[in-house]
Amino acid sequence: MATSYPFSHIAVIGIGLIGTSIIHAAKYRNLPVTFSAYDNNPDVRAEAADLLSHIKITTTLQQAVEDAELVILAVPVGVMDQVIKDIAPYLRPGCVITDTGSTKRSVIRDVLPFVPESCNFIPGHPLAGTEFSGPAAGFASLFETRYWLILPNGSPENKVAGLTIFLSDLGAMVETMDADYHDRVLAITSHLPHLIAYTIVGTAVDLEQDLKNDVIRFSASGFRDFTRIASSDPVMWRDVFLNNNEAVLEMLQRFSEDLSYLQRAIRWKEGDKLHDLFSRTRAIRRSIIDAGQD
Amino acid sequence: MATSYPFSHIAVIGIGLIGTSIIHAAKYRNLPVTFSAYDNNPDVRAEAADLLSHIKITTTLQQAVEDAELVILAVPVGVMDQVIKDIAPYLRPGCVITDTGSTKRSVIRDVLPFVPESCNFIPGHPLAGTEFSGPAAGFASLFETRYWLILPNGSPENKVAGLTIFLSDLGAMVETMDADYHDRVLAITSHLPHLIAYTIVGTAVDLEQDLKNDVIRFSASGFRDFTRIASSDPVMWRDVFLNNNEAVLEMLQRFSEDLSYLQRAIRWKEGDKLHDLFSRTRAIRRSIIDAGQD
Repeated sequence: MATSYPFSHIAVIGIGLIGTSIIHAAKYRNLPVTFSAYDNNPDVRAEAADLLSHIKITTTLQQAVEDAELVILAVPVGVMDQVIKDIAPYLRPGCVITDTGSTKRSVIRDVLPFVPESCNFIPGHPLAGTEFSGPAAGFASLFETRYWLILPNGSPENKVAGLTIFLSDLGAMVETMDADYHDRVLAITSHLPHLIAYTIVGTAVDLEQDLKNDVIRFSASGFRDFTRIASSDPVMWRDVFLNNNEAVLEMLQRFSEDLSYLQRAIRWKEGDKLHDLFSRTRAIRRSIIDAGQD
Repeated sequence: MATSYPFSHIAVIGIGLIGTSIIHAAKYRNLPVTFSAYDNNPDVRAEAADLLSHIKITTTLQQAVEDAELVILAVPVGVMDQVIKDIAPYLRPGCVITDTGSTKRSVIRDVLPFVPESCNFIPGHPLAGTEFSGPAAGFASLFETRYWLILPNGSPENKVAGLTIFLSDLGAMVETMDADYHDRVLAITSHLPHLIAYTIVGTAVDLEQDLKNDVIRFSASGFRDFTRIASSDPVMWRDVFLNNNEAVLEMLQRFSEDLSYLQRAIRWKEGDKLHDLFSRTRAIRRSIIDAGQD
C-alpha cells in the first residue's frame, strides 16, 4: 500500500539560519517535498537565490504560501503577529502552520487569533542553533539528534503526526510540550544563559581601554564561551526577552538571590559554602553527558 | 659554542591536570630535562606512577625538590603557603621556583616570605585548562598557542629568560605582567565567568524535580556551555575566589549593576536598550576571533 508523504509543498517564511537549515536538511535527506521561501529583506532574498537555487524564492508572501500544505514561520518572535496577518488571506485551506520561535506563550497569543478556521497552527521550537545568523549560516545537519519541541495545541492527531514525520525526517527528536512549561524550561536553559552572557561581555566592554584590550587577548578560559553566546542575533534575542519576560524575570530573580549568596560567601571567606555548591554543579554536568546532550 | 639548557632537572609539586600536562609536553617535544614529581595524595601518586612511568614519582617533598633547578608549584592557591614552608629547607641553592596558580597577589603574599635568599620566585599562570582534573586529565598539547603569564617580580634577567625558554618550549606564548593587573584581568576573563556559571547551574539544580530533569534533557543551547564550566575542580575554584576576593567582588559589583539595568529593560519592555547592548557584544566576539584566541 502506497503511503503519501504528509506534505508535498512547504513554505518557509524568514530565510535565516533556521529557515535555510530546514531547506538544506530536506534536500540532503532526499525528502519528497518542494519549497518556496520568502524574506522581507531584498538583500536576503538575493543571497538566498544564489545559495538555494533549487527552490523558489518569492517576492511576495502570497506567492510563497498559496500552494503550501505546510507553512513554517522562521522569523523573530516579535514579528509573528504581523506575518500571520499578512499571509492569512492567502493560506491554502487545510494547511498546517508551524513556527520555530524560542518563546511559545507569546507566539500562541500573537498567531492563533489570525489562523483561518480550516488550517491548524502547531507551534514548534527546534532546540538547535549557532551564534551565526543569515541565509549563509544554515547547514543540513543542524537538527541532527537535537530536540524539536511541538505544542499540539488541540490540533487533530493526523496533522500533528504529519508534522512529526517531517521534523523527524530532518533529523530531530520530536517531543510534545505545553506552552507554560516550555517557556519556563527555556527561560533557565537558554534565555537566562544568553542574558547573562550578554551582560558579562557588556561589563567587560565598559572597562577602561587597557584592561579591555587585555580582556580580549587573554579571553582563553571562561570568557571566550560567553562571547560566543553573546554574539547571537540581536533582534532575535531582543524579541525573546520581551516575549518571555515573565519566566525570564522569575528565573533572573532566583539567579540573583543565588549570586548574592555566593558574593557574601566570598566577602566573608566562607569556603565551605563555595565548595558545596561547586561540588553539586559538577554532578549536573555528569547527568547531561549521561543524557547524551553533550 | 654549545649552549646548555636552562634547567636539567625539574620538580613538579601537585600531579593534576597542569602538572602532568607540563611533563607530557616536555616529553612530546623532546626537551632535554628530567622530572621528579610529588603529590600529597597517595592515590594520585599511584595513578601517576602508572601514567608517567618515565619520571620519578617521589614519596616525600624533599626527594622531589632536592636536585631540582626549577620547582613548579602546581597546587591549589590555598595551599601554596604550606607547600613552600615544607620544601624551603630542601631547595637546591640557586633554584628557580614558579607556580601555576590562577591568583597572583595571594601567591606572592603566601610564598615569597619563605623563599630562600639564594633562590628566585617567578610566579606564573598558564591560561590553559579544561573542566577535567587529576593526573589522567593531562595532555601534551594543553599549552600550545596559549598565553603563559609570568611575573618577574625583581628576579635576575637570566633567570626570567631561562624560565621563558622552558615555558615557550612547552608551546606557550610567554608574557610578563604585574600582580595587581593580572588579578583584575583574570577576575573578568575567568573568575567571574566561572562564578556565574556555577551560580546558574546551581539555580537550575534547585528547581522543582520535573523541571530540573527537563533542564538536563533540553540543555542544548546556552546552558550546556555553563555546565561544562561549572564542572571544574571545586577545590581549585574555591581557593581562587577566596584569594582573589577583592578583584572578583569589584567585577561582580559592576556585573550586578549591568544585569539590573537589563532586568529593568525587560520589565519595562525597553527593546532598544537590549538591542543596543546585544549589538555591541557581537562586535567583541569579532575582536576575539581577530586576536586568534577563538
